[in-house]
Amino acid sequence: MFDPVEKLKEFIRHPSVSADPKFKEGMQGAQKFVADLLGSMGFAVEVVKTDLHPIIFAQRGGDPKWPHVVIYGHYDVQPADPLNLWKTPAFEPTIIGNRIYGRGAADNKGPLMTNIAAVAQLLEENPKLPLRITFLVEGEEEMGSPSFPKFLESHKDRLKEADFVYLSDTALPSQEQVVITCGLRGLALFDVHVTGAKGDLHSGMHGGAFRNPIQALAEIISTLHTPEGKVNVPGFYDGVLDVHPWERDELRKLGASEEEYKKFLGVDTFYTTPGYSPFESLRFQPTLEFNGIGGGYQGEGTKTVIPSKAFTKISCRLVPNQKPDQIKKLVMDAIIARTPKGVKVEFVDQHKGEPYVVVPPDRSNTPKDQSPVLARAFRATDQVVTEVWGRPPLYLREGGSVPIIADIKQVTGLDSIMFGLFLPEDNLHAPNEGFNLDVMKKGITTTKRVLQAVAKT
Amino acid sequence: MFDPVEKLKEFIRHPSVSADPKFKEGMQGAQKFVADLLGSMGFAVEVVKTDLHPIIFAQRGGDPKWPHVVIYGHYDVQPADPLNLWKTPAFEPTIIGNRIYGRGAADNKGPLMTNIAAVAQLLEENPKLPLRITFLVEGEEEMGSPSFPKFLESHKDRLKEADFVYLSDTALPSQEQVVITCGLRGLALFDVHVTGAKGDLHSGMHGGAFRNPIQALAEIISTLHTPEGKVNVPGFYDGVLDVHPWERDELRKLGASEEEYKKFLGVDTFYTTPGYSPFESLRFQPTLEFNGIGGGYQGEGTKTVIPSKAFTKISCRLVPNQKPDQIKKLVMDAIIARTPKGVKVEFVDQHKGEPYVVVPPDRSNTPKDQSPVLARAFRATDQVVTEVWGRPPLYLREGGSVPIIADIKQVTGLDSIMFGLFLPEDNLHAPNEGFNLDVMKKGITTTKRVLQAVAKT
Repeated sequence: MFDPVEKLKEFIRHPSVSADPKFKEGMQGAQKFVADLLGSMGFAVEVVKTDLHPIIFAQRGGDPKWPHVVIYGHYDVQPADPLNLWKTPAFEPTIIGNRIYGRGAADNKGPLMTNIAAVAQLLEENPKLPLRITFLVEGEEEMGSPSFPKFLESHKDRLKEADFVYLSDTALPSQEQVVITCGLRGLALFDVHVTGAKGDLHSGMHGGAFRNPIQALAEIISTLHTPEGKVNVPGFYDGVLDVHPWERDELRKLGASEEEYKKFLGVDTFYTTPGYSPFESLRFQPTLEFNGIGGGYQGEGTKTVIPSKAFTKISCRLVPNQKPDQIKKLVMDAIIARTPKGVKVEFVDQHKGEPYVVVPPDRSNTPKDQSPVLARAFRATDQVVTEVWGRPPLYLREGGSVPIIADIKQVTGLDSIMFGLFLPEDNLHAPNEGFNLDVMKKGITTTKRVLQAVAKT
Repeated sequence: MFDPVEKLKEFIRHPSVSADPKFKEGMQGAQKFVADLLGSMGFAVEVVKTDLHPIIFAQRGGDPKWPHVVIYGHYDVQPADPLNLWKTPAFEPTIIGNRIYGRGAADNKGPLMTNIAAVAQLLEENPKLPLRITFLVEGEEEMGSPSFPKFLESHKDRLKEADFVYLSDTALPSQEQVVITCGLRGLALFDVHVTGAKGDLHSGMHGGAFRNPIQALAEIISTLHTPEGKVNVPGFYDGVLDVHPWERDELRKLGASEEEYKKFLGVDTFYTTPGYSPFESLRFQPTLEFNGIGGGYQGEGTKTVIPSKAFTKISCRLVPNQKPDQIKKLVMDAIIARTPKGVKVEFVDQHKGEPYVVVPPDRSNTPKDQSPVLARAFRATDQVVTEVWGRPPLYLREGGSVPIIADIKQVTGLDSIMFGLFLPEDNLHAPNEGFNLDVMKKGITTTKRVLQAVAKT
């Protein structure tokens, strides 16, 4: 059996920055490293070519009656810039105390290695374990997984026969409190462009005769929320999934302080969907946010121009069961209806992502047809986490979006158990990324025992 | 007597771009050219040093009982970029047909030379002309005349004893229709900065909890006008000068077509102060315009961020008798009162300029204490223009701002007669600037006869 920490160091040494073509060698090295490691564990490894970075599809087959778990992870990392802010070399793993530092240590090489090591130990101890396992390790997660939907389509028949997906690519609030993420928000993004006069014009010669597109855009934007904090678009909330009392209870158990959160944000008051606390609002309610705005002169000093154009970039975070395309249409229709005379409005469509939810067993809203293997995996996770970490996990929906989880559900029908391992201090996507080796150790034990429990049919 | 066209060519050959230190030699050349020319005409020339480019102050004295006219002009020009769009060299004057091309040909070297030549001819014909004349020719007009207020203060006693200012630095709608500009809008400019959370935040992790500064800024902006087109700030219109029927009549005589103007703007509807046509609105009414807006991500694609900050740049065009400082305070107070909770608002003050108005004699609102010399100058202008150009001039207020005219009035008490000589096709501030030599010829005759009439006491 290999040493998980030594293997993780080796993994981090491959500088696998997917977004930067200069790191081609690092990407190939990391991909080969994972493929070889899984091969050495007896997996049938396929390296599936995509338009960009290959996906590793490695299987341990067996009796079709055995349960089948898909373990997801990614071998690519974020760029390490700005390098001058790193205290240790970004691609030379360095252990200080109980932490290992290096780009990708937490996102996602450490957590992925945790789950690979758990499987390796389990199979070494019980080579005849009645469990089919598929590792699905992609190399484009940090780029938004552009090749993933195509891969899902081409492999859906082989994935459909699995029971559930297991992954560690979400957060761990503290070593005292594990969270199983059971919902993610979706996304609907587009830009709004408003045009007034056909060119920029002198505000002295022409000001006072026609409508300024900045004013028109501001008037449109100002209609899209109520003063109380709701999105003011007819039909926007129609599909929104109810929040169940158990969900609010779980969130309350997280014990986050509103005063601390205000300090963190640097604001003196919240602005949430009415009837929801800020923590509830950002996990259970949809949003319509403006990510950027621009138009006219933005430099130092002044330029007395009436600009021809202004734009804003809108992103909606969606909750189950809102549909991104439908929400885009509702918001665009509202904007068109509210565009004042004298300007033209146009849209540039951007991407989208479906929201996702999975309900653990034994809840008021657990689907009656939930797969018994998924239910067993959830129950096992609950019990093992309680034993290993000293407290039951919390089942929480998150405010963020991981579109591939919803894509997997949509294409293959598989739900995901998201067992988070990033601590708040792990500096994901930032300099001095690190991963806690105690978390790794407990994570290995947890995953191992969960899979063992799933295997027992 | 010199040949005005040859002298204008010589003047244009000095590349006097005030804003660009590379053109120091051209600036010195143009300044010396004007000083020498006025010296050769018998003027006592002072070259008044400033922090940047000297001001030429040249006087023909005489009996203190003689009327005294100040003729304003500027020897500096706009940069000539982009040079590749010029059909003839920017600083090599080229005559094609009845037009002379070159940077500064129209703004302001041609019109200034028109007035200098008129004075030269007049004094040659009548060396004993009972008229005191002061030429005031600055070199920073294209930079916003930063040294001018200081100069006014130091020379106010010598200027106060004059009767009026005469200048040709405004527009001529066509050779058939002279306009005497009798009002200019003022300016009040400042930036508005709105801050939400203390840093940019992930719209998934935090979206739904607090107010987006882009939304807050849009909400503020959207309150600053009524749907009908008025500025919605208490007290904003308090000082606004009434429009007199004769002013509307003059404007009507200009015969501008609203349909043509819509086509020029590229809009299908106007948005004006209620009760005013677009042409009236932009000359007689104040505005509050947004010259620029910015915040968050403005690049290609998407970035799901909630920005910490957003800003807009505001400029108000003011009409007589609004006060720039008071208007700034009113608008800022309204913004503060309308800023939603959860964001902070701050202002960055920019510059300002007073509005200006002079009423010709014999109007319903002519001041009873109007100086007889100014009244005579207006009457002479009216009569001479009618004879030379075939039609009486129109007396119109303009939408643009020339802050030095209001500054002169404020410091010295002098009003200005603005006799416009730029044709619409003269391409001011643009490539292929040109000046019509027929206009120059008629302009010389006009100025000469006006001054002659003023001199007759």
